[in-house]
Amino acid sequence: MKQTKIFLNEKDIPRQWYNIAADMPNQPPPPLNPGTLQPITPDDLSPLFPMPLILQEVSQDRYIDIPEPVLEALTLWRPSPLIRAHRLEKALNTPAKIYFKYEGVSPTGSHKPNTAVAQAYYNHIEGVKRLTTETGAGQWGSSLAFAAGMFGIDVKVYMVRVSFDQKPYRKAMIQSFGAEIVSSPSMDTQTGRKIREKMPDTPGSLGIAISEAVEDAAGREDTNYSLGSVLNHVLLHQTIIGQEAKKQLEIVGESADVIIGCVGGGSNFAGLAFPFVRDKINGADIDFLAIEPASCPTLTKGAHRYDFGDTAQLTPLSYMHTLGHGFVPPAIHAGGLRYHGDAPLLSQLVKDELIRAEAYSQLDVFQSAILFAKHEGIIPAPETSHAVHAAVTQAIQAREEGKEKTILFNFSGHGYFDMSAYTNYLEGGLIDHVMTDEEIQESLKKLEGLPLSFNG
Amino acid sequence: MKQTKIFLNEKDIPRQWYNIAADMPNQPPPPLNPGTLQPITPDDLSPLFPMPLILQEVSQDRYIDIPEPVLEALTLWRPSPLIRAHRLEKALNTPAKIYFKYEGVSPTGSHKPNTAVAQAYYNHIEGVKRLTTETGAGQWGSSLAFAAGMFGIDVKVYMVRVSFDQKPYRKAMIQSFGAEIVSSPSMDTQTGRKIREKMPDTPGSLGIAISEAVEDAAGREDTNYSLGSVLNHVLLHQTIIGQEAKKQLEIVGESADVIIGCVGGGSNFAGLAFPFVRDKINGADIDFLAIEPASCPTLTKGAHRYDFGDTAQLTPLSYMHTLGHGFVPPAIHAGGLRYHGDAPLLSQLVKDELIRAEAYSQLDVFQSAILFAKHEGIIPAPETSHAVHAAVTQAIQAREEGKEKTILFNFSGHGYFDMSAYTNYLEGGLIDHVMTDEEIQESLKKLEGLPLSFNG
Repeated sequence: MKQTKIFLNEKDIPRQWYNIAADMPNQPPPPLNPGTLQPITPDDLSPLFPMPLILQEVSQDRYIDIPEPVLEALTLWRPSPLIRAHRLEKALNTPAKIYFKYEGVSPTGSHKPNTAVAQAYYNHIEGVKRLTTETGAGQWGSSLAFAAGMFGIDVKVYMVRVSFDQKPYRKAMIQSFGAEIVSSPSMDTQTGRKIREKMPDTPGSLGIAISEAVEDAAGREDTNYSLGSVLNHVLLHQTIIGQEAKKQLEIVGESADVIIGCVGGGSNFAGLAFPFVRDKINGADIDFLAIEPASCPTLTKGAHRYDFGDTAQLTPLSYMHTLGHGFVPPAIHAGGLRYHGDAPLLSQLVKDELIRAEAYSQLDVFQSAILFAKHEGIIPAPETSHAVHAAVTQAIQAREEGKEKTILFNFSGHGYFDMSAYTNYLEGGLIDHVMTDEEIQESLKKLEGLPLSFNG
Repeated sequence: MKQTKIFLNEKDIPRQWYNIAADMPNQPPPPLNPGTLQPITPDDLSPLFPMPLILQEVSQDRYIDIPEPVLEALTLWRPSPLIRAHRLEKALNTPAKIYFKYEGVSPTGSHKPNTAVAQAYYNHIEGVKRLTTETGAGQWGSSLAFAAGMFGIDVKVYMVRVSFDQKPYRKAMIQSFGAEIVSSPSMDTQTGRKIREKMPDTPGSLGIAISEAVEDAAGREDTNYSLGSVLNHVLLHQTIIGQEAKKQLEIVGESADVIIGCVGGGSNFAGLAFPFVRDKINGADIDFLAIEPASCPTLTKGAHRYDFGDTAQLTPLSYMHTLGHGFVPPAIHAGGLRYHGDAPLLSQLVKDELIRAEAYSQLDVFQSAILFAKHEGIIPAPETSHAVHAAVTQAIQAREEGKEKTILFNFSGHGYFDMSAYTNYLEGGLIDHVMTDEEIQESLKKLEGLPLSFNG
């Protein structure tokens, strides 16, 4: 019988996170204080984050130790399995081998708890009693709710309105873990109230929800803010995914030719890819594919420049691929991929051509998701389905070229909380929205006046 | 670091099913043909089932080989992990060790695919092109939809109306796997139309849905019927759970003092328990606890006698604990536990006092489910939550008695498709309904005239 799942033991969970800043050829320009337009200092960030996370944000150390209580929390679900998609390969009649790292085994069904437990732990040891955050599809909000609960911390989640309405089960999960949740824009913050006045029918956006969560945290002594993607320390915490995957590929004597992940802010992609990107920097021949929706094409069509992380311009300016902080993407179902920007580390690596980006339309993506589900028995989250579609496309290409290759993708999460999207798809109710260049130029125009580099 | 998860390799999946009929002290009386009141023959069953399953139904062999294609399908998710609930133990401050066998890793999130792949395979090799079935909470319907799809068989699922309305995500899952689904009672069968005429507002029941699925299958040459619990061959297929758990306990040098499962028809309970019941028959000291809802208390309050498996009296008469085939349980959320009867094998073992039964009210059950979720990171299905509550109760008792013991329960499925039940619970919208003796006597009265033994 062919081996399907490659497991590691709990003792094989990596003891350190891998920090790509130590190896990348060019560092991204530093984030700027929006007031002074100078690089932000640890003091600028301390009202929002605990010091260990701020230090990780600027660290140049290649490896950073994972604290024991974080490791212990991770053993609830890690190491996650690496799975060979034998049945999908057969259905596609491809010479390619398809492996996926299955992050759906976590408490909330995605990669998000990998960083949630670390962030909750560092806030806990600094005595923080309450955290605020935003969430798109709900993956992040539920993960922080669970992780913070383990360390006795209260959580308030601002959930993007369109997802709040589409995903009542995520809301129930967040409440089951003991957290408070509100639809964003809400009436609980100044930002929220202003936006609701101006745009009562807005579907909301991650940019808006971040503004609300930051405003809440900045206004209260006992409260910190927590972000589920984009920042360096978040990407750092996800690198256990790629480190595990490396060990698992070694066990079966394989090496990956193509490595794929979907990108919203960039953390699940980075988590799988960065430990392998190091190999590419050191000479290995690997093709990295970052996949985004055509309705929110930040890496493929955005500008690479300074922009705010949020709509209300409360965050530092980050140097990243962006569609403009005012961008409100159409209400596609891949809620986690609707962010206007990308992680600065990922943006830099795309700029430096170590990583390629592609944008797909959602009807193609759902078609591949259904194919995958029927053969492999796991229904992917709409976000993850973008990576699935890329893997399927690569496998078909291998068949057409008669070329063997090994494809590895990050199965960032299952779709059991996203079934209304599948109902819509099956009933023909989904449409594709591909952002036009005009729409994107219009959105980027609003960035005029923001600095282009940190010298002005 | 303490070990949390005990994994087996794919080569450790059991190669044979264990058949408790070979070891139990008393056999249950045989099922009767409702026309002749004589024991049913293979010919009576052949319009509905393929011959290998009929032979398994009456087999006295202790072990039955698992066909290679079934094993190969099982490797998509098996062996399932055995997990030590360290954090729950700590929260309960108990000297007891709590282990659970996590069947939520399967394609549909429960134990059901274990038998679905076997049933689909045997129908496939007999050339069957279409299967009908009923489903309560949707676990079984989605499992058969997935498994039959793997073998190229079409499926029509009759889903109990109350669950059909409460669980739109299950419906979407069944459709994603390519099956047809209809709310039961439906307009597609004579049985369904009759019941809708008489009781337009009925929440439906498994008994009604079985009648519809059997009527559909009996009326079409190309169609067989498939059942997700109760029958001997279904319990047989589930015994890989207990066989794996035994190996896993051996790895950590433990033996179980208490073994727990929830009971609807009895298959998940039997799957974990029967390989250990053999040990008890051979002298081991193990306490077996079968847990049911107080709103459908078949084992604790039902009669042990002959009854129909379905409402419309189309099935053979089975000797089992029953509340009467006309029983329509209140619309509690544990849809999979709403069946009026129990597996004859399980019923006989309860009668013979090898297994104890207890009935719980759902508010207690949800309270333990939330406690479990917060500490262990998995939200249990409402059905499974009955087993969780039993484990929690046993662990608290161990603390009060100052007694170490090892508790093993079957975590039959996760609750990610049942979150509306959690919303109801958290918002105070759930009520308890404990069936009274009068209600039960009333329902059992309708069985007057049915035979009490197969000699009349």
